[in-house]
Amino acid sequence: MTFEGISEIAEATPSKIVLYVVDGLGGLPDPKTGRSELETARTPNLDALAAESALGLTDPVAPGVTPGSGPGHLGLFGYDPERFLIKRGVMEAMGIGLDLAPGEIAARGNFCTIDARGNVTDRRAGRIPTADSAPLCEALDSIIVEGASVAVHPVRDHRFVVLFRGDGLGDDVTESDPQKEGAPPLELRALAPGSEKMAAVAREFAEKAREALSGRDRANMVLLRGFSRLPDIPSMAQRFRLNPAAIATYPMYRGLARIVGMRLIETGTSIADEVETLAEHFHEHDFFFIHFKPADSAGEDSNFDAKVQALEMADTAIPRLRELGPDVIVVAGDHSTPSVLGAHSWHPVPYLLHSKYSGRDGVAEFSERACARGSLGRFPAVQSLPLAMANALKLAKFGA
Amino acid sequence: MTFEGISEIAEATPSKIVLYVVDGLGGLPDPKTGRSELETARTPNLDALAAESALGLTDPVAPGVTPGSGPGHLGLFGYDPERFLIKRGVMEAMGIGLDLAPGEIAARGNFCTIDARGNVTDRRAGRIPTADSAPLCEALDSIIVEGASVAVHPVRDHRFVVLFRGDGLGDDVTESDPQKEGAPPLELRALAPGSEKMAAVAREFAEKAREALSGRDRANMVLLRGFSRLPDIPSMAQRFRLNPAAIATYPMYRGLARIVGMRLIETGTSIADEVETLAEHFHEHDFFFIHFKPADSAGEDSNFDAKVQALEMADTAIPRLRELGPDVIVVAGDHSTPSVLGAHSWHPVPYLLHSKYSGRDGVAEFSERACARGSLGRFPAVQSLPLAMANALKLAKFGA
Repeated sequence: MTFEGISEIAEATPSKIVLYVVDGLGGLPDPKTGRSELETARTPNLDALAAESALGLTDPVAPGVTPGSGPGHLGLFGYDPERFLIKRGVMEAMGIGLDLAPGEIAARGNFCTIDARGNVTDRRAGRIPTADSAPLCEALDSIIVEGASVAVHPVRDHRFVVLFRGDGLGDDVTESDPQKEGAPPLELRALAPGSEKMAAVAREFAEKAREALSGRDRANMVLLRGFSRLPDIPSMAQRFRLNPAAIATYPMYRGLARIVGMRLIETGTSIADEVETLAEHFHEHDFFFIHFKPADSAGEDSNFDAKVQALEMADTAIPRLRELGPDVIVVAGDHSTPSVLGAHSWHPVPYLLHSKYSGRDGVAEFSERACARGSLGRFPAVQSLPLAMANALKLAKFGA
Repeated sequence: MTFEGISEIAEATPSKIVLYVVDGLGGLPDPKTGRSELETARTPNLDALAAESALGLTDPVAPGVTPGSGPGHLGLFGYDPERFLIKRGVMEAMGIGLDLAPGEIAARGNFCTIDARGNVTDRRAGRIPTADSAPLCEALDSIIVEGASVAVHPVRDHRFVVLFRGDGLGDDVTESDPQKEGAPPLELRALAPGSEKMAAVAREFAEKAREALSGRDRANMVLLRGFSRLPDIPSMAQRFRLNPAAIATYPMYRGLARIVGMRLIETGTSIADEVETLAEHFHEHDFFFIHFKPADSAGEDSNFDAKVQALEMADTAIPRLRELGPDVIVVAGDHSTPSVLGAHSWHPVPYLLHSKYSGRDGVAEFSERACARGSLGRFPAVQSLPLAMANALKLAKFGA
């Protein structure tokens, strides 16, 4: 699926690639109109760009597979998402902007409610509001365990992240969430020899959390899962000889970019801010990842009209982006988020590639159906980065 | 090509998938009209369904590879046909409806004719008719060898199947067919240490067959090949968490379905019978495989008009099938069988997927050319099942 020898043919050049990721880009037709969000939205700038570009559809992971944000982005960054899996604890830590150090283990935590016999009666402690859970996190943060330091960070409602730092901590540990009510939390166990210390530390933490929360009638225990560390991923500099930067407002996407070695550039909160940030730093890098979130959020809310508006907003970035004159512009999505599903989905994602050498399909429409007829065909998203690099003349000939 | 982690994201749900396999579905244009069998046939129900579905083309194994029935179906069942190979002896046994037990070895046999020096003069014994070969099979069936029991079943003409049952029989054994005349049968040898007993048993069987048939002027010896056992394949329940059933009239397809753990439902001989069987048992399973054979048979007979008629018959199943309201309908072929070739072929096969979330290409035509322009593009058949499961909302999100 991917060309393994890419590092050997990658060349550092001054040419510039901009990867514009419209999160949750793809959709499905509104049953009333027969038109998808992208087909309904007025996107004159994307349509005009499409006419001068090659179009296609990407499969983020594989046909039928619905990706989370991690696999969806890693594929577009040029990493096989099945091989480089980022587990739940790390993703959650990233989502709140925590800076994981190598060797550190992140776990996702839930406050839950247990009865007098220790059985879980509510796995989410009634979705206790953040205002109530934040002080509880502070209490947990002061727990001291043997062999590791512990830091507890609130996420939202009943959710938090625990970071464990210490020597010899592995991340192959079972979860304590019994996944049903009426049963006690499961024992945290090591699944591999290198994770035994981590399991012991986690058990001690859970027991001390039980003590710290005792006497409360709800949110009186914690459930832990998704023990994970930063994955071992070669940087984009190592793998592709790129000097990459990320312009994103949400912590999770900034975290994902940092994992593959992108420099994070501070920016504002709107897509206009992001494009201005791009303009300011345009001379400093040869690869830029720009992330646009609202289309996914609206799709997840099943709000067709809001997704249409979000896509119209995404469209406004294009003129300024083109003005900067990057050698290659890619407009892609990390996955589809059809409003009719209200969730990420498996559907292939519209894709646009513009360069001097991309050819042009001559179709002035950026949509699921126009892209299905595009000259790039349907392809795994992990092939996007090599394709963009080729169009930026950053890949040498393979073989004599 | 396939997503390895499918077992981990598969979820059992009540939603229902119907896989309707039209055997030998794809074809090629009649040189006189320029239209394929499917383009010639009046298939109003398939055309109407196509208008509300996503279309594409499948490669059963890989571009250029013509599959047998085994690989063609295993791909559609979600198993990489190159990895899960069903060898000739087992396929032949299935074709006549034999029920192979685990550990049993099946071999394909030919009656042949040898001369006084033991050289093969006719590898097929003049294609001796079944009426003549059946009593010879009975004679062979009474052969007793050391260390295994032997059962011989006539197939047709000069062909038969031998089943060997005993402890420690391996299937890595050479064939005795010299593949040319004027040479003696080859010695049956083990290719791996675990198959030495099987080779010895087979040699003894072949020698005793020579004795039992001696004195005849033709069909006086046997050639054996394709030693094989049931392949070790995880069931669809294990791999996909499906509760699958098969509705098929021909033994070979029933055998293939049984190999992946489908329940076989008894049915009549026509497609109308099969669809009524589906209706009766619709509440009992979440996955149904329905097999329609006549299109392939007509193609193999090079009978263009008969294939057109068969496809028109296949079309009549659609209204009742839709009436049942499965969440996902897939219409696919195990391979193409163009009448102009009179054989299975390597051509990609029309494919249709219908669900609430499939999107619709809006093309009211189910044909090779319409499918080539479909939104699903061209893809390996092994990706069909995950795609169908996704559309039935049976696959959880991959990664956070």
